[in-house]
Amino acid sequence: MRILGLDPGTASTGYGVVDALEGDLAAVTYGVIRTNANERDARRLQQIYEAVNGLIASYKPEAAAVEQVFFGRNVTTAITVGQARGVLLLALENAGIPIAEYSPPKIKETIVGYGNADKAQMQMMVRHLLHLDKTPQPDDAADGLAVAITHYHYHRYESL
Amino acid sequence: MRILGLDPGTASTGYGVVDALEGDLAAVTYGVIRTNANERDARRLQQIYEAVNGLIASYKPEAAAVEQVFFGRNVTTAITVGQARGVLLLALENAGIPIAEYSPPKIKETIVGYGNADKAQMQMMVRHLLHLDKTPQPDDAADGLAVAITHYHYHRYESL
Repeated sequence: MRILGLDPGTASTGYGVVDALEGDLAAVTYGVIRTNANERDARRLQQIYEAVNGLIASYKPEAAAVEQVFFGRNVTTAITVGQARGVLLLALENAGIPIAEYSPPKIKETIVGYGNADKAQMQMMVRHLLHLDKTPQPDDAADGLAVAITHYHYHRYESL
Repeated sequence: MRILGLDPGTASTGYGVVDALEGDLAAVTYGVIRTNANERDARRLQQIYEAVNGLIASYKPEAAAVEQVFFGRNVTTAITVGQARGVLLLALENAGIPIAEYSPPKIKETIVGYGNADKAQMQMMVRHLLHLDKTPQPDDAADGLAVAITHYHYHRYESL
């Protein structure tokens, strides 16, 4: 089973593609989709949309998992992250890929074992679970992988 | 000049197409794009995206104006409205249509004359400016027309 994980953000959307084979996990690719803050919003959204379409075409994921966003902070940020999320969801829906969503505490709980894990613990566990030689960089890429791994765990229990 | 105005919302996105000919304004079409709350988010976003693509294909607007959203209230609402906004902006960008954005107080000020105008005053002025026999319904459709009219006014002064 191949899972595309996405962590949507305004300037940078992390992604990771994970293969689950006979109970073991492997990273197929990971990285970030960056857009230029000097561009218009609509152009940046188009770039994100095209990049996700490119990932779907290249890696043909069978499922997608998207990190849910929580903000206590800033409503303006919520709108711009929502916009990025909108075009991600559209690209996945257009490709007919089933979409699951997981909150940050749920992802931390699944990967590390408790919902308040810090970034370094998360990165170490993502590296360990995927048998990587080094910690996936940048941070947003590790977050993309983490949400993909989370979906694998939930999907596994669902299909029992 | 033909302008497509859009007022993005979660359940209902108002739209209005306005023609400006020799300083006079006419409504070409108006209405709302509704999505079903029982559908998945991604499917609802796809419906909005396809509906906007349909409006662009049918009416071939030369410019678009989108209402900016302000929330003191609810961050969850901000995310879902942001998602709808994201796919609207993507559809316009894909079609190469220039996009302007106006805040609700700016729209009220332009249409009625002051930023705290109420809904009834706005609807009456939209009706008057577009020489309509009755008030455009539903309310979101009038908001789509109002943002299109606002863009006409600003664009007019810009092109002096």
